[in-house]
Amino acid sequence: MTEVPELLAASAAVENDFGQRPAGALKIYDAGPFSFETGGHLPQVRLAYETWGELNQAGDNAVLVAHALTGDTHVASSPADPSPGWWEPLLGPGRPIDTSRWFVIAPAMVGGCYGSTGPASADPQGIPWGSRFPFVTIRDSVQLEKRLLDHLGVTRLHAVVGGSMGGARALEWAVSWPEFVRGAGIFACGAASTAEQIAFLQAQLLAIRNDPHYAGGDYYGGPRPEAGLGLARRIAHITYRAEPELQQRFGRERQGAEDPFGALSLGAGRGRYQVESYLDHQAGKLVGRFDPNAYVALAEALASHDVGRGRGGVGPALGRVRARMFLAAVDTDRLYFPEQSQQIAEWVPGDVPVHMITSPIGHDGFLTSAEQLGDRMRAELCL
Amino acid sequence: MTEVPELLAASAAVENDFGQRPAGALKIYDAGPFSFETGGHLPQVRLAYETWGELNQAGDNAVLVAHALTGDTHVASSPADPSPGWWEPLLGPGRPIDTSRWFVIAPAMVGGCYGSTGPASADPQGIPWGSRFPFVTIRDSVQLEKRLLDHLGVTRLHAVVGGSMGGARALEWAVSWPEFVRGAGIFACGAASTAEQIAFLQAQLLAIRNDPHYAGGDYYGGPRPEAGLGLARRIAHITYRAEPELQQRFGRERQGAEDPFGALSLGAGRGRYQVESYLDHQAGKLVGRFDPNAYVALAEALASHDVGRGRGGVGPALGRVRARMFLAAVDTDRLYFPEQSQQIAEWVPGDVPVHMITSPIGHDGFLTSAEQLGDRMRAELCL
Repeated sequence: MTEVPELLAASAAVENDFGQRPAGALKIYDAGPFSFETGGHLPQVRLAYETWGELNQAGDNAVLVAHALTGDTHVASSPADPSPGWWEPLLGPGRPIDTSRWFVIAPAMVGGCYGSTGPASADPQGIPWGSRFPFVTIRDSVQLEKRLLDHLGVTRLHAVVGGSMGGARALEWAVSWPEFVRGAGIFACGAASTAEQIAFLQAQLLAIRNDPHYAGGDYYGGPRPEAGLGLARRIAHITYRAEPELQQRFGRERQGAEDPFGALSLGAGRGRYQVESYLDHQAGKLVGRFDPNAYVALAEALASHDVGRGRGGVGPALGRVRARMFLAAVDTDRLYFPEQSQQIAEWVPGDVPVHMITSPIGHDGFLTSAEQLGDRMRAELCL
Repeated sequence: MTEVPELLAASAAVENDFGQRPAGALKIYDAGPFSFETGGHLPQVRLAYETWGELNQAGDNAVLVAHALTGDTHVASSPADPSPGWWEPLLGPGRPIDTSRWFVIAPAMVGGCYGSTGPASADPQGIPWGSRFPFVTIRDSVQLEKRLLDHLGVTRLHAVVGGSMGGARALEWAVSWPEFVRGAGIFACGAASTAEQIAFLQAQLLAIRNDPHYAGGDYYGGPRPEAGLGLARRIAHITYRAEPELQQRFGRERQGAEDPFGALSLGAGRGRYQVESYLDHQAGKLVGRFDPNAYVALAEALASHDVGRGRGGVGPALGRVRARMFLAAVDTDRLYFPEQSQQIAEWVPGDVPVHMITSPIGHDGFLTSAEQLGDRMRAELCL
């Protein structure tokens, strides 16, 4: 058997959990064999998830929260894992998604590295899937999550919410099961990945695939393609922020005592600008917590996002939606432009406004200014 | 002696000319030894340049055109090289920069690969400089170009014009020699590279430096870091265009018969979206005509751009300008935002408006819609 990477081995509690959640924080559902949209197949898929609150007798008080590209199941603190989550202000007792009323489920997406089956998971022979892991689409993820909700006894999904790739997942939910989904909150995301989003994702995918340590995806047991993943994260992170914020925070300042004008030659290496140090830090953080193959799988899934595929296009697909819709965008988002949320609004039935998050941050505003979503989300989704 | 790369060997007429201009199209000036701003030194620097028209007796009818990051000396067609140049509509007999009146000089920037001394040039022992090539700044380039103009007998520079990095060079000219420069046209460029511009440049530099074929910059005679340069170009090219244009041209269309949903697994390779094929094509074109080390040298120079360095900041530096200023920006530019041109306008003496180029293209609009510059440039710079 190929040796599993250190990070994977460290999280013994749950296979393929790069987040190293405390033991017992993640629940595991065995979804059985699964055939993926583009033809791949796995003999067994496990879905990891966290929950908050209790499902009622009727099974109709469930809320599903879908994480973004590098997000995980830990939306908010819980008794099993009291550390703050990535949407802490939105979820908990008395919060907009009130866990004393709602049964909240946050599944880790298949193909990722936060507990659900992904490329670092072992095949039946105990060897990580690596390059053999199926190509994953957003549609695959919601198909599997539907199995999970059926298993849990959910009869109606009161709401499904998410931002960025989580928004893509939530929208796919609303289109795939119009009668099952009663409400959908779609934040900082459009109906289909655009040419520019695909272009930036291609650059990120190439950054990883060009890294010689990537070894075509079969690097487990050897050195990880950390430089490639780090570069992918840098590219992505720039697009998640906004120019004025970067300029105001960093401008052309140098990092500490480092000197960007301190190199005699091209090969000598120079000191960094603050913004470079900041991106190095962001890259290092992700490299420490994420599997490069999982990044590839989920970035491919995000590029695949198109609710109109095989449904006569985006318009007819969105026309099927029966859920209450709560749409939000970040005013400074330059990756998922507010216009893309507006297009969803125009295609779904009824008169749906786009709520605007005001933030200097750009795309990441759906995370950093989550509190701006709470009241409106509660009202629009009857939470 | 290390074997020189094939592309370099192919352009026998002028050392380090990756553009392969016809013999005689490039003129060469030996600028002698040069000490660079950050401390590097070369025993000999040669500047390649093209000219149009004739210098008058007083030596005061000269116009310098500064190319952008991957640009060259071939601004427009000439008897020595009748192929169209990158600013063909702006330069020639009867055109806005009328070569029957003006003596036009277009030097290739030091550090590049279009005939001037660069990292692929040979040291006195005949070995390409590679990693030992000095760190270059925009200021170095204009210092050397001043030597060239002195050599040619230019007594006053009637105008210096350029876009993007060419704009940075032109602005540095106007600040460095306020009495010598009578007019400056600065297009799609600010007074100093911003945090976001540095961030995108860092990603491009890492793409090249992470390529194992880069070998720290000493790859001559071995395989070239083509994947790295290609990735750098893809990242850059996305930022040179605008989201709506990419969406309108490519949307989510697939490339020919290729199928983006045709892969069973992550390692199987899938068909491309059109926008991916387009970026592959852009990458391939640059890889075929540019030296990766030259890209590194000039990208570093562009990141270094700051007319305020050592001059008490951008405001006081621009306050020194005595040239007539013609500023232009592209309305859809999301890399060099029009606000950055506006800041130059606010800091230079006098009341200088920013001319807006209307284009769906983004930053590259200063090239693709050059005709929108002509009349205003002629009027504002008294051409």
